[in-house]
Amino acid sequence: MEHSGRFIVSSGKKLRLGVLVSGRGSNLQAIIDASEAGAISAVVAIVISDVAHARALRLARNHGIEAVSIDPCLHATREDFDATVIDLLRKHEVELVCLAGFMRLLSPHFIGEYRNRIMNIHPALLPAFPGLHAQRQAIRYGAKVSGCTIHFVDEGVDTGPIIMQAVVPVLDDDTEASLSARILTYEHQIYPRAIQLFAEGRLEIRGRRVFCHETDTPQQYAKRAWGAVNP
Amino acid sequence: MEHSGRFIVSSGKKLRLGVLVSGRGSNLQAIIDASEAGAISAVVAIVISDVAHARALRLARNHGIEAVSIDPCLHATREDFDATVIDLLRKHEVELVCLAGFMRLLSPHFIGEYRNRIMNIHPALLPAFPGLHAQRQAIRYGAKVSGCTIHFVDEGVDTGPIIMQAVVPVLDDDTEASLSARILTYEHQIYPRAIQLFAEGRLEIRGRRVFCHETDTPQQYAKRAWGAVNP
Repeated sequence: MEHSGRFIVSSGKKLRLGVLVSGRGSNLQAIIDASEAGAISAVVAIVISDVAHARALRLARNHGIEAVSIDPCLHATREDFDATVIDLLRKHEVELVCLAGFMRLLSPHFIGEYRNRIMNIHPALLPAFPGLHAQRQAIRYGAKVSGCTIHFVDEGVDTGPIIMQAVVPVLDDDTEASLSARILTYEHQIYPRAIQLFAEGRLEIRGRRVFCHETDTPQQYAKRAWGAVNP
Repeated sequence: MEHSGRFIVSSGKKLRLGVLVSGRGSNLQAIIDASEAGAISAVVAIVISDVAHARALRLARNHGIEAVSIDPCLHATREDFDATVIDLLRKHEVELVCLAGFMRLLSPHFIGEYRNRIMNIHPALLPAFPGLHAQRQAIRYGAKVSGCTIHFVDEGVDTGPIIMQAVVPVLDDDTEASLSARILTYEHQIYPRAIQLFAEGRLEIRGRRVFCHETDTPQQYAKRAWGAVNP
């Protein structure tokens, strides 16, 4: 497994995104909004869903974005399914794959094809609470803080190199729904930011660490802001 | 393993602390300072070290606090060592045991004797990075945030119910030393706060969650402040 290198993106040209979804697509919405507002130098080239009736497909089409559903039942293996996805991504010249509530695990072949060019968002401060129902895990564990993590995808489950993390408190009276809603607000903020850092060629992976070059890194931002978060 | 109940402390009387140390005692210093300043309704009744030359012992004596070192080599088993410690704590009528850089694991007997009355501080956002060298673990993992956790001690390693957590950023150029120093500043702030919540009888353990009663909980504080921490 190779994790290194900095992404050089030619300036002026917009980064072409392929967004993989399974559900309502609220992170897709945030990415489309940021793209349309010119807040990120990126454009959603295609949206692919493994669920035929995902609301995210309709959302994409409403914005004039090609949206395709691929039925896993029509593919004998995960590799077959992934090959169909890869064909579509290539056809649309996708440079960065964004998982946004995509509920299937990608095959090692897929991950190899897009090594260090697949991002995922997870609703917890990884490595805490990986896998399903991260918000419920955080509440049941009794954590006082949680948040969300943008990371590159590797062969593990939520184990890839971390790009950004945002923090929220877990309140005594939180339900899974209330904590999820609080975290989701920040998912919508950091996903476009991480895409923009990638588009600007500022992310460098060394081993399993992601370094952010030049000014106003997320860490510098956090450094300015961190004083206020602590009880 | 029983985890429940709220601590009722009689008002007016200062909570008697027993602090267990192995090293320099910077958290001990923070607790003593808070006590002497009247910031917490607690007094350090005794300091116990398993290291004869721990700087923390000298520090305690400089403040007129009884400080005792107990040599593990003079005790055949961990249980024997712990029995000596328990005798000392009882003699000094200790109500809350505070681990402050104490490097030995406590026996199940000790934990049973002071069930839900032993606090520890850990330099990471548990359940992430338990055990030794938590700051180094966070850097190597590539986490973008870390912090510290005050928790009640149970039979596991850094697994007990969480009372408070404070968050700091992990910067690209951090070393283990620089991250440790950043976290330590917050350790010194939240340890006295957690002791004061205990002294005021505001902590309630249900299962593995700790709830904080009445006004200005750490969560309410964090709720007010959380907006600023997010990148």
